[in-house]
Amino acid sequence: MVELKLITDFIESIFPPSFAEDFDNIGLLIGRQNKKITKAIICLDCDKNVVKEAIEEGAELIITHHPAIFNPLKKVTDDTDHGEMIVSALENGISIYSAHTNFDSAPGGLTDSVVKELDLIPIGNMEGELGRLCRAPFGETAKTLTERIKEKFGIANLYSTFTKNKSIETVAVCNGGGGGSLVETAKQLKADVYISGDLKHHEVSMLKIDDNIDFIEMRHYDSEIIACEILYKKLDERFMGEVNFKISKVQSNPLIDTNLIK
Amino acid sequence: MVELKLITDFIESIFPPSFAEDFDNIGLLIGRQNKKITKAIICLDCDKNVVKEAIEEGAELIITHHPAIFNPLKKVTDDTDHGEMIVSALENGISIYSAHTNFDSAPGGLTDSVVKELDLIPIGNMEGELGRLCRAPFGETAKTLTERIKEKFGIANLYSTFTKNKSIETVAVCNGGGGGSLVETAKQLKADVYISGDLKHHEVSMLKIDDNIDFIEMRHYDSEIIACEILYKKLDERFMGEVNFKISKVQSNPLIDTNLIK
Amino acid sequence: MVELKLITDFIESIFPPSFAEDFDNIGLLIGRQNKKITKAIICLDCDKNVVKEAIEEGAELIITHHPAIFNPLKKVTDDTDHGEMIVSALENGISIYSAHTNFDSAPGGLTDSVVKELDLIPIGNMEGELGRLCRAPFGETAKTLTERIKEKFGIANLYSTFTKNKSIETVAVCNGGGGGSLVETAKQLKADVYISGDLKHHEVSMLKIDDNIDFIEMRHYDSEIIACEILYKKLDERFMGEVNFKISKVQSNPLIDTNLIK
Amino acid sequence: MVELKLITDFIESIFPPSFAEDFDNIGLLIGRQNKKITKAIICLDCDKNVVKEAIEEGAELIITHHPAIFNPLKKVTDDTDHGEMIVSALENGISIYSAHTNFDSAPGGLTDSVVKELDLIPIGNMEGELGRLCRAPFGETAKTLTERIKEKFGIANLYSTFTKNKSIETVAVCNGGGGGSLVETAKQLKADVYISGDLKHHEVSMLKIDDNIDFIEMRHYDSEIIACEILYKKLDERFMGEVNFKISKVQSNPLIDTNLIK
Amino acid sequence: MVELKLITDFIESIFPPSFAEDFDNIGLLIGRQNKKITKAIICLDCDKNVVKEAIEEGAELIITHHPAIFNPLKKVTDDTDHGEMIVSALENGISIYSAHTNFDSAPGGLTDSVVKELDLIPIGNMEGELGRLCRAPFGETAKTLTERIKEKFGIANLYSTFTKNKSIETVAVCNGGGGGSLVETAKQLKADVYISGDLKHHEVSMLKIDDNIDFIEMRHYDSEIIACEILYKKLDERFMGEVNFKISKVQSNPLIDTNLIK
Amino acid sequence: MVELKLITDFIESIFPPSFAEDFDNIGLLIGRQNKKITKAIICLDCDKNVVKEAIEEGAELIITHHPAIFNPLKKVTDDTDHGEMIVSALENGISIYSAHTNFDSAPGGLTDSVVKELDLIPIGNMEGELGRLCRAPFGETAKTLTERIKEKFGIANLYSTFTKNKSIETVAVCNGGGGGSLVETAKQLKADVYISGDLKHHEVSMLKIDDNIDFIEMRHYDSEIIACEILYKKLDERFMGEVNFKISKVQSNPLIDTNLIK
Repeated sequence: MVELKLITDFIESIFPPSFAEDFDNIGLLIGRQNKKITKAIICLDCDKNVVKEAIEEGAELIITHHPAIFNPLKKVTDDTDHGEMIVSALENGISIYSAHTNFDSAPGGLTDSVVKELDLIPIGNMEGELGRLCRAPFGETAKTLTERIKEKFGIANLYSTFTKNKSIETVAVCNGGGGGSLVETAKQLKADVYISGDLKHHEVSMLKIDDNIDFIEMRHYDSEIIACEILYKKLDERFMGEVNFKISKVQSNPLIDTNLIK
Repeated sequence: MVELKLITDFIESIFPPSFAEDFDNIGLLIGRQNKKITKAIICLDCDKNVVKEAIEEGAELIITHHPAIFNPLKKVTDDTDHGEMIVSALENGISIYSAHTNFDSAPGGLTDSVVKELDLIPIGNMEGELGRLCRAPFGETAKTLTERIKEKFGIANLYSTFTKNKSIETVAVCNGGGGGSLVETAKQLKADVYISGDLKHHEVSMLKIDDNIDFIEMRHYDSEIIACEILYKKLDERFMGEVNFKISKVQSNPLIDTNLIK
Repeated sequence: MVELKLITDFIESIFPPSFAEDFDNIGLLIGRQNKKITKAIICLDCDKNVVKEAIEEGAELIITHHPAIFNPLKKVTDDTDHGEMIVSALENGISIYSAHTNFDSAPGGLTDSVVKELDLIPIGNMEGELGRLCRAPFGETAKTLTERIKEKFGIANLYSTFTKNKSIETVAVCNGGGGGSLVETAKQLKADVYISGDLKHHEVSMLKIDDNIDFIEMRHYDSEIIACEILYKKLDERFMGEVNFKISKVQSNPLIDTNLIK
Repeated sequence: MVELKLITDFIESIFPPSFAEDFDNIGLLIGRQNKKITKAIICLDCDKNVVKEAIEEGAELIITHHPAIFNPLKKVTDDTDHGEMIVSALENGISIYSAHTNFDSAPGGLTDSVVKELDLIPIGNMEGELGRLCRAPFGETAKTLTERIKEKFGIANLYSTFTKNKSIETVAVCNGGGGGSLVETAKQLKADVYISGDLKHHEVSMLKIDDNIDFIEMRHYDSEIIACEILYKKLDERFMGEVNFKISKVQSNPLIDTNLIK
Repeated sequence: MVELKLITDFIESIFPPSFAEDFDNIGLLIGRQNKKITKAIICLDCDKNVVKEAIEEGAELIITHHPAIFNPLKKVTDDTDHGEMIVSALENGISIYSAHTNFDSAPGGLTDSVVKELDLIPIGNMEGELGRLCRAPFGETAKTLTERIKEKFGIANLYSTFTKNKSIETVAVCNGGGGGSLVETAKQLKADVYISGDLKHHEVSMLKIDDNIDFIEMRHYDSEIIACEILYKKLDERFMGEVNFKISKVQSNPLIDTNLIK
Repeated sequence: MVELKLITDFIESIFPPSFAEDFDNIGLLIGRQNKKITKAIICLDCDKNVVKEAIEEGAELIITHHPAIFNPLKKVTDDTDHGEMIVSALENGISIYSAHTNFDSAPGGLTDSVVKELDLIPIGNMEGELGRLCRAPFGETAKTLTERIKEKFGIANLYSTFTKNKSIETVAVCNGGGGGSLVETAKQLKADVYISGDLKHHEVSMLKIDDNIDFIEMRHYDSEIIACEILYKKLDERFMGEVNFKISKVQSNPLIDTNLIK
C-alpha cells in the first residue's frame, strides 16, 4: 500500500507533463488525491465497464492512456455512459489518472517503444515532440517492414499504399492518430514510408498519388496495444510488493471482426 | 418519499427551462437521476459546507439558485473547494439541481417576486425575458422607494445616486447582477430609477452623471435572499408529507459586516 | 460523339448541384467547356495515372466522384503529382468533371444506392441531405446485417463494435466519411447501428461505450466502390452509340492488403 | 502661470505612460496643447458639473484620474451628458488631462500609496504592474486589518468574507476594480486576504468558499478617494506660486447613503 | 433664422437615414443641437480651412457629404489637423452635420442625379441600395457615352478600358468609390460598362481583360462635384429668406494639375 | 537555348524571394519546370492576349510583374478570361513566372530604380522592405520635382495636392499601390511629399488637409512602366545569344484616354 501521490509522481518523473500537447488533458482527472492504493487497473480507455471491473477487483485507482475527461463537462450525472463512469467511480472511491501525449512523446514513451519494437532508429521528431522520423535497418523493403509490423503487433490484416516491393531508407512513425498536418509533414521530411492511423480516405489518397512516399496503416488501437504493457512493466517493477497492478480484462479493440459476433 | 423526477418536473413546470439565458447551466447538474427523495436542502450557492449539512441532515437532494457548475470542468477531483463539493456529494449519493435564470425570469419567478414585494407594477421586460420595467405607486419619491426597499429586504445601509428627493414614475428592476448592456437598456427605457446589483464603479458613475436616471444599488445577495423562501413555499406546498424541504442554515451573505468578526 | 455540355447537363439533371454541400467543389473543374466527346473515363479519384490512361485510351473527358481540385490552387505547375495531373490533362486536351456530394445525396444517388443494395428502407435523412436513417428488414440482427454487407460489397474483413448478436430495427448510413457531428446525430436519431467510414478511434470508442448504439465500419473506399458502376450504367444507357464510357482500370483502393505486395 | 506642457511633462515624469495598461486611454484627451495655465481642477471623474466648476473658478485645465474619454466617440455633440461635458469644455477653452493606470501602477503611485497608508510592506506585483502582494505587520489579524482600513479611509461600513478572527501574513491589494483574472491571481499568490473592489457576487462567493483566502471589499471609490490628495500634493509642491491647484468640490462618491437624501 | 432641427429634419425627410450603409456615420456629428441658424456652408469634406471660412462668413452650421468623423476618436485635441478642425468648430459655436450614403442612395439622391445627368434610365440597384444598373439611350456607343460624361461633368481627361468604339446597352454606375465587391457585381449584372472611381490597378486590369465589360473611370471627386449643388438647391429653395446657404469656396479637388502650382 | 531553371535562378539571385510580402504569390506559377527556353515575353500583367502573342512569337516562357495567379483557384477552365489564359498557356507548353514584391523591394529592384530615375537619395525604407524615404536634391521644390516626374516617366497630366510651390527636403516613394497603412507611415516619417498610386479619395483628402505633407499621384501603371525595361536589360545582358527576350507589344495601360477610342 502506498500513497497515490507516490505513484503519480513516479509516472510524471518518467513521462513529464511538459511533453503533453497543449490541447491535452492529463493528470489526476477524477477522485481524491490523498488515497492509499493497494490495487490499480491499467487501460487504454476508461468506460463504465472498467470501473465495474475495478470495483470487483477492489482497486482504488485506474490509470488510462486516453484522457478520462476530454470535452469539458457542464454536468456530472448518470444520464450518459460517460457520466455514469464518473459517478460510479466517485461513489466507489476510485480515482482515475491519465497519461496521454506526455506518455506518447517523452523519451522512452509509447512512440519510442513502437519505434524500438520495429527495429527502427529514431533520427528526429516529426512536429514538436510528436512522432519520429527514423532510419530503417540495412536492406529494409516494403515486404520486410510490413511483415515485421504484423508479427510484432499481431496484426492479421495490414494495409498499405504499396503496389510493389521497394527499398526503404527512412520511415516516419506517429502511433495513434496522425492525420491532419502530420501527413504533409511526413512528405516534407522526405520519408519513404509513413506509418500511422486515423487518416481519412482523402489523406490516404494524397499519399498514394505521391510517388515519393507510401503509407502503412497501423490502426489507432493496434499501435497502442502495447501502451498498457509498457505502463504495467514500469509500475510493477517500481512498486512490486506494495501495489498490485493489473491490465484491464474488459477492455478490447472497440472494432472487432464481425465473424466473432456471438 | 417521491421520485427525484417528480420534483424536477414540478420545478420545470413553474419555471420552464425555455426562460433560461443561453449562457446559463441549469437542471440536474450533479448525481443520479433515479433517486428516492425524502429530504432536500434549498440554498443560493452550493459549497462543501452545504453538502456537509445535507449529509448530516440525511438529505438526498440539494436545490440551488446559482448553478452548481458554471465553468465547464476538465477535472472532478478534490484539489479545489469546488471539486471537493462535487466529489463529496457523489460519494454520499447526493444529487444537485439548479434553477437559475429560468427561476429569475419566468412569470411568478424571482424577478416578479422582488417587484411585487416592492409594490411596483410591471409593464414590460428589460431585455428578452430579463428584468422588469415597472410603474411606481402614486406619489412615489426617492425617499418612499428607498425606505420601502430597506424595510422589505431588511437592508441596513442602502446606497443610491440620489442627491435630493424627487418624484418617481418608472422603475427598472434587475435583481442579482444587472451590469453590462442592461445599464444602457435602463436608460433607453427612460426609467427614472434603476434598481440592480454587481455594477462597476464606471457604470454607476455613468448613471450618476446622467440627469434623467438614478441608480439604487440593491446588492446581489440582498435581492436574492428571498429566492430560498419562494422555492421553499412552492415545494413545501406541493410535496407536503412526502418530502421534507429545508433552507440551508450554513449559507449566508458572503460579505459580512466586519464589525461582526468574532 | 456529343457536346460535353450534353453530358454534364444530363448528370446535373439526375444529381442536381443544389444537393451539394457548401464546402464542396463540383462541376467542370479542369479544361475546356466546348468539346466534342467520343470517349470518357469514370473514376473515384483522378490522379496522373488516370490521365495517362485517358491519353492512351483516346478519351477527351474524365468523370470523377471526389473533386479533382479540392484545396484552392496558387500554382498550376508540375512540381507536385497533383499539379502534374492537371498540367498533363490540359496539355492533352482532356477535361475533368466532378460529381461529389450532389451525387451522394440526390434521390437515387450513391447513398440511396448503398441503402438499397443493403435491403434497408430509408425513412429520413441524417443531416440536411446527408446520410439516411433506415428501417431494417424484419428479423434483422447484427449477424444478418454484417453478413449482407460483406457479401454485397465483397468485403473480406468487416469490423464492428458488436460483442454479441442482437436484434436491429433502425440503421443510420453515411457512405464515405461520416465522422464529426454525424456521429452524435446517429445517436440522437436513436439508430441501433451506424454504418460509416473515416471515424477516428475516439469517435468509435464513444459509440462502443454507448449501450444503445453500435458501429459497423464500412471503410470509405468500400462504400464507394459502386459509385463508378452507378455512373457508368446511367451514362452508358443515355449516350449508348454516341459516347464510349469506361471505368478506369488503373484506379484501386489506395489501401491494399500488404500480403499482395509483389 | 506656466505652459500646459510643463505640467503634463511633470506628471509623466513621476507616473510614466509606459506603466499604463494597453486598454487604457491617458494623456491630454480634450482641448488645446499650447495653453497658459493659471488654475487647475483635480478630480476622479470629470462630468459636466466639474466643467461648470472649472468655468466658475476660471481654471484652464482639469486633471482626472479616470479617462475623460473611454469608449471611442463617433460624435462630439451635446445629446448626452458626456458629450455636453466635452462641448462645454471646448467652448470655454478648458483642456482635460487624464492619468489613470500609469498613476495607479507607477512606483509611488496610487496603489503604493494605498498600501503605505495601510502599513503593509509590498513584496511584489500581482499581474504585470497591477496590484501589490504585501506582507502584513507582525501580529496582524482580520480584526486589526479591517479596523485600520476603516480608520485610515474613513469607511463606516466595511464588509468581508471573514467569519471569525484569524492571523494574517500576506495581503494582496488592488485598489479600484480588481475583478476578473485578478481574483484567481490573488489565490495563486497564496495571499491570506485580497483587498479590492468591483467584484461580482460570483467572484466574492468563490473567494468565500475557499478556505485559504478571505476577501475584504474596499469599494472602488473608497480606495481612490486619496487619489486627488496625492496629485494635489505633488503638483502644488512643484508649481507653488505659479499655478493654483484645487480639488473639485462638486465631485462625490456616486453612491450615497440613502438616509442622506434631502 | 431657423432652428437647426428644422434643417436636419428636412434633410432627413428627403434623404432618410435608413438608406445609409451600416459602416457609415451620419447626422449631427459635432456641436450643439439647439441652435439658431442664419448662415450655413455646404462642402464635400470639412477641414480646418472650411471651419475658418465658416467663422469668417459668420456661419453657425457646416453641412458635409463625407462624414466629419469617420474613425472613432479617443481624443479631441488640436494635435492633428482633424482634431484642430473639431476644436476650432466647437470653440466658435459651429455645428457640423453629415449626409453621406443616405444622400448617395436615397431616391432622388446623388447617385440618381448622376444617372439622370448622363441621360441613363435606372432599371435596378447594384448592391442593396448602392449603385444603379441603367439602360443606355438608343444608339449609345463608347464614344457617345464618354463624350457626354466629359461634357456634363467638365472632365478634361477621361480614361477608360475601351480600345475601340462599340455599342452599349447597359451601364452600371457607382459614383464616389466603387471598388471591392462592386467590381464583381458589375460583371455579374452583365453591364456593358461600369462607371465608377477609386478602383485599384488590379481591379481595373481584371475589367480590362474581361471581353464582356469595359470600365470608365470617373474619379471620386469628379462624380461628387455636383453633390454640393444638389444640396444647395434643395436647401435654398426650402429655407429661402430664412437661412443663407453657401457652397464652400475654399474646398477643391484635393488633386490638382501640377501645371497649376503657383 | 537554356534550361528554364537557369533563368529563374538568375532572377531569384538578384530579386530574392525573401523580399516578397507575405500575401504575395511569386515564382513559377503555371507550367512545367524542366523546359528548354529559346524565347521569352516580359510583361506587367499576363492576359490571354499576351499568351497569344507568345504563341505567335514561339516563346516558351512569359515573365510577369503582377502574379499570374493571385486569388487561389478552385477551377482551371476556360469559362473566364483568366482561366482561358491558363488553359491556352498549358495547351501550348508555355510556362509563366512572376516576380512581384521581391522585384519591387530588393536592392536594385523596381522601387530603387524609380527613386534613382527621379534623382532622389534613399535614406531608409517605409515599412519593412516596402517603399523608400528619400532625400531630395539641393534646391528641390514642388515645381522641380513634378516637372522631373513628368519628364522622366512621360506623364502628360500629373496631379498633386500642392496649391503653391514650396521647398522640399524629404520624399516618400511607394511605386505601384501605396494606400492603407502606408499613407499614415508617410506622415509619421515626416516626409514633405508622398509619391504613390492607388490611394482612395478619402486617403488623398487626409493628406491634403495635413499642412505638413503633400501628395503626388503617380498612378500605378505609370510608376511600373519601367519594370519591363529593367527586367529586359538584366535578362538580355545575362543570357545574350542564348535566349531572345522581348517586351510584350500587346500590353498597355488598362486605362486609355477616351479621346483615343477608335
